[in-house]
Formats: sequence, C-alpha cells, structure tokens
Amino acid sequence: MKSLLLVAHGSRRAESNAEIAVVANALRDRVKGNFTHTEHAFLELAEPSIPEAIDSLVKNGATDVTILPYFLSAGRHVHEDVPEIVNAKQQQYANVKLHIAPYIGEASEMIDVLVAMSNSNS
Amino acid sequence: MKSLLLVAHGSRRAESNAEIAVVANALRDRVKGNFTHTEHAFLELAEPSIPEAIDSLVKNGATDVTILPYFLSAGRHVHEDVPEIVNAKQQQYANVKLHIAPYIGEASEMIDVLVAMSNSNS
Repeated sequence: MKSLLLVAHGSRRAESNAEIAVVANALRDRVKGNFTHTEHAFLELAEPSIPEAIDSLVKNGATDVTILPYFLSAGRHVHEDVPEIVNAKQQQYANVKLHIAPYIGEASEMIDVLVAMSNSNS
Repeated sequence: MKSLLLVAHGSRRAESNAEIAVVANALRDRVKGNFTHTEHAFLELAEPSIPEAIDSLVKNGATDVTILPYFLSAGRHVHEDVPEIVNAKQQQYANVKLHIAPYIGEASEMIDVLVAMSNSNS
C-alpha cells in the first residue's frame, strides 16, 4: 500500500502550518489513484513530526512511503535533516520502503509557476 | 521600463544562494518580453539585499518593479519583512512603482508541481 508524505519546514505561525494541511488535502485528492494515503508532517516547530507521521502511515498499512520535501532550495534541511530522519525510520521498519522524492524547488515546472506569478500583479 | 525582482530568503550555504541565481537566469529568459531586467535578491544572510537590488534596478532605468517572493508559505517574511523593506524603498523612489506579486506558494499551479514530483520517484 503506497502512501505519500508531504514534508514542510514548520513555522511558529499556526496559519503557515494550516496552509500546509490545505496543500496536503488538495494533493490527496489529486493523487488518490496512486497513493492510498496522503498526509503531511513538519521538520520542526509544528506537529505532526516526520517520525510521528511515518508511524501513523505504517500503522495504517503503508508498505511504501514517498516523502515529498516541500522546500525551495537544497539547504541543510533537504540534504541532511530529512534524510537522517527518514534513514532512522527505515532502520526501524525494514519491511516498509521509505524513499525521498526530489524537493519541490528542483521541479522544472517551478519556472512556469514563477512566470505565471510575475504576470499576476503587473 | 519594467523590471522583475525575485526575492528569496537567503542561506548560509553558498550553493543554495547559487540556486536562486540559476532560477533568476531561467526566469529572465522566459519573461524578457515583459520585463527589461530580471534580477534576484535575498531577504537575509546573502547578497544582494532587496534594497541593493532595487537601487540597482532603478539606476538602470526601472520605473516599475515587480517583487516576486520565492517563499512557500505566508509567514512573517512574506507578511511583514518584505513589505516593510519595499515600502521604505517606495518612500525613497516616489517616481518608481514598486509592487509585490503573490508569493509562490499561493500559486494554484503549485499543486501540479507537487503531483509531478510525487510521481518522479515512486
């Protein structure tokens, strides 16, 4: 059973974290043909944490979890923090395949989004 | 003369800041029909700063500058920091129109990017 986990940084602002839940809800609807469950998690400052969310997905039957980093650039969080957390969970769940998708800033489609936004207020 | 300024947070990692320059270069090529100049700036931790970049664009003849926030969620940076800096510059340049486009996370196209990325490694 395949699951998708959208991972964002997390903020001290509840509104910012709520935005991530909205994005995850919209994403769930779009990918339901591929992923039985789609949830979100935060690297820090907010809950659920990444380990909590993975535990929950596995408890619900996930055997394959794609972690999707909602980050624009490949800083320490993308290169070190998220992989470390995911690797630790992989040790714990030997029978579950955990893998990390490219971070969002790496998508070639991002430039299309920027072009659209540059025209939206000019 | 219209100019576009891509504004990112800035990082202590030079590689992350270099990614923004690459994005700005790709964007410049795509929007050259609408914007005479396209540059990038950082809110903090890296240069050029937003005021430095606006000064440079105005010096090069900009009369209309669209500031495009490369941020995924509407935290303090999007709601307060960027507008404060831009407003201060607007006071300085009464004959230049400075305006802030919606931040990238607000683009409806973002969900398409996430859908594409969710399939890229699964």
